Amino acid sequence: MTRYISFRRPDGTASFGRIEHDTVLDLGTPGTGSWLKDALGRDLGALAPTATYARSDVRLLPVVPNPGKILCIGLNYATHVAETGREQKEHPAVFTRWADTLVAAGEPVVRPRESTRFDYEGELAVIIGKGGRRIREADALAHVAGYAVFNDVSVRDWQRHNIQFTPGKNFPATGAFGPEMVTPDGVPNLAGQRVQTRLNGELVQDQPVSDMIWDIPALIAYCSTFTPLAPGDVIATGTPGGVGDKRNPPLDMKAGDRVEVSIGVIGTLANPIVDET
Amino acid sequence: MTRYISFRRPDGTASFGRIEHDTVLDLGTPGTGSWLKDALGRDLGALAPTATYARSDVRLLPVVPNPGKILCIGLNYATHVAETGREQKEHPAVFTRWADTLVAAGEPVVRPRESTRFDYEGELAVIIGKGGRRIREADALAHVAGYAVFNDVSVRDWQRHNIQFTPGKNFPATGAFGPEMVTPDGVPNLAGQRVQTRLNGELVQDQPVSDMIWDIPALIAYCSTFTPLAPGDVIATGTPGGVGDKRNPPLDMKAGDRVEVSIGVIGTLANPIVDET
Repeated sequence: MTRYISFRRPDGTASFGRIEHDTVLDLGTPGTGSWLKDALGRDLGALAPTATYARSDVRLLPVVPNPGKILCIGLNYATHVAETGREQKEHPAVFTRWADTLVAAGEPVVRPRESTRFDYEGELAVIIGKGGRRIREADALAHVAGYAVFNDVSVRDWQRHNIQFTPGKNFPATGAFGPEMVTPDGVPNLAGQRVQTRLNGELVQDQPVSDMIWDIPALIAYCSTFTPLAPGDVIATGTPGGVGDKRNPPLDMKAGDRVEVSIGVIGTLANPIVDET
Repeated sequence: MTRYISFRRPDGTASFGRIEHDTVLDLGTPGTGSWLKDALGRDLGALAPTATYARSDVRLLPVVPNPGKILCIGLNYATHVAETGREQKEHPAVFTRWADTLVAAGEPVVRPRESTRFDYEGELAVIIGKGGRRIREADALAHVAGYAVFNDVSVRDWQRHNIQFTPGKNFPATGAFGPEMVTPDGVPNLAGQRVQTRLNGELVQDQPVSDMIWDIPALIAYCSTFTPLAPGDVIATGTPGGVGDKRNPPLDMKAGDRVEVSIGVIGTLANPIVDET
């Protein structure tokens, strides 16, 4: 299993690297901004380190800070479909985020001043390594660079302003993504990993990846039919039941809260909630 | 009134320029790719031409070939809300396109092999000149670089696969955008301009911009509340009633058709329909 991160070097430039124990092996070009997505088309494992840092000396960035496309899958766990009261359809629901919504593991997720209806959505993220169009299900896993944890934090009232989710899913600093990308060889039992979300330590979502209605090959095949996928593109594969919005009474995240999404060996993504100032 | 285009020079590089009669005044850096959106933050009128071409010697590109964000407004004309059978809400519907869906005026719009439910949506596009977040309605028009014509061509069955429109709005070569950006001073009576769509010469959509439910300042204020807008970002302001999908029988576009969207002084965007090969 190999783990990759994106980070800021002590000199402030962006780079990406491999994690070994508590060391970051910098795989970028020294002194200049270097991006994981630009390296995903190549053999990551063959890149030679250009520097090393203690993990505590770098600042994490979202695992892919600048994906060209972030495709978010809605309604991909039967428990979540049921709690929303919606009908299960024959095809996935797909909405989008822009990259300027992303925050790294550990960074604050920011509740905008327009809303108090601020909700978690723990998800498995698939990071595309090899692009393509109309990728077949049978070939799809060869297009995956790795997996990471995603929290598709949602501004529920803005999500419901009208029939499209865009406004509720694109406030800045609402897409938590990280801490690491784990290569597929590190996750032999992906289906058995559990997507677990904890709010202030309380377990609020907990289902195995195998509960997805459309599995990862199906999602890659479907999405790449209508849009070309490129290295670094992200598919956030949907959230299990248990969202705060559908609880009675609703459970809203507020300043001072700590939200944590864990997916077994893929890692744990923890973020504090702050109010926008 | 000043008109701007994006284009490919005879040497194949991309640039942008001002139109004077049948002449293109190249405003880019000679010999290298130059993009309208990178110039929108500056005073376009003050840029000195670096070359001139006959209009027939350049190949049009989408008027902004590479917008960072394309925000599409759904359900913004009462006639269209009515024909869809949907409820009018208090806030706009917003979905998104990626820039890799865009085609220039005159270029083929491509019906994907997955569908025969291929439909026009004539729209006014607003091109952002000055970025911002939480732009007030009163200030919004100062953020507009210009206007252009948009055809938000839709793959209707894929749009209806589930509750989010993304798949039906993001097939390649379905977002026609052009031919020109017209500066706001050239459109003193914007509200009175009519959005008119013709399919093979037959008028199928025809309503004034004043029929929009949310006007341009309201859309800029709303969208910039949840996402920062940047120079070159595009808001496609929604389509009037008369879409092919809601006719009885439905009117689908097919190979050999010619679709044309005109918006008064803003211009006419014409595209042939071809089948994907």
